[in-house]
Amino acid sequence: MFCLDSRLKNDTINIGKLQLSRVLLMNDSRYPWIILVPELDNVYEWTDLYNEQQITLHDESLLIQKVLKDLYGGQSLNVGKLGNIVSQFHLHHIVRFENDPAWPGPVWGHSSPVNYSPQELESRISEIRQAIRI
Amino acid sequence: MFCLDSRLKNDTINIGKLQLSRVLLMNDSRYPWIILVPELDNVYEWTDLYNEQQITLHDESLLIQKVLKDLYGGQSLNVGKLGNIVSQFHLHHIVRFENDPAWPGPVWGHSSPVNYSPQELESRISEIRQAIRI
Repeated sequence: MFCLDSRLKNDTINIGKLQLSRVLLMNDSRYPWIILVPELDNVYEWTDLYNEQQITLHDESLLIQKVLKDLYGGQSLNVGKLGNIVSQFHLHHIVRFENDPAWPGPVWGHSSPVNYSPQELESRISEIRQAIRI
Repeated sequence: MFCLDSRLKNDTINIGKLQLSRVLLMNDSRYPWIILVPELDNVYEWTDLYNEQQITLHDESLLIQKVLKDLYGGQSLNVGKLGNIVSQFHLHHIVRFENDPAWPGPVWGHSSPVNYSPQELESRISEIRQAIRI
């Protein structure tokens, strides 16, 4: 049984599942921010995945990148695997804008999240789900 | 003719070429840090690459990740495409240690680099080139 890290669980909303990865929306209304977590135990690095899993994850990441770009535009898309604090493998996808709070620095560790209101959250989840078709 | 962004050029040492990407070593002796830059014009996002180029870049990134992990170990490997400051597509690979200056935060924007000495640089480039076989 796959078990999501408790910090990822606390910081995000589970919005669905792709073939390999759970799709999480970071609960920070300042940035459209999706995290993919392959539902596999004991994976900490890309290199811990089998070749076919790496390809699937790469395809899933590209899908998320395309959807975020199409939906929100933005100045650049930050895609990152860090794992310094939460070691369970997870891949960030964050739309960045020139007027966002952390610009042009990285968002990680910059400032506390601003949670979505229930209405904002419903709307964001709905548009992302529709675009990803999950 | 492909032209490397001047900031990337200033901050790194060119250590070779893979099938698609130029391999750059960040001139910061505090972190083993390799940047891949596909030698293509007008590429800003993964989604700007053609499908086959995406696959090649993904394979080249996995090679770099494996080499860095094998050579330097570390607590985690940070792999990131940001592009907030330098928009030319470039993919970071950074070995992170629990006692490195930025731990557990991201390295980007944390502090000024500490350049390699000529001897350190020669040794690092040599071991990486040998491992990548370029």
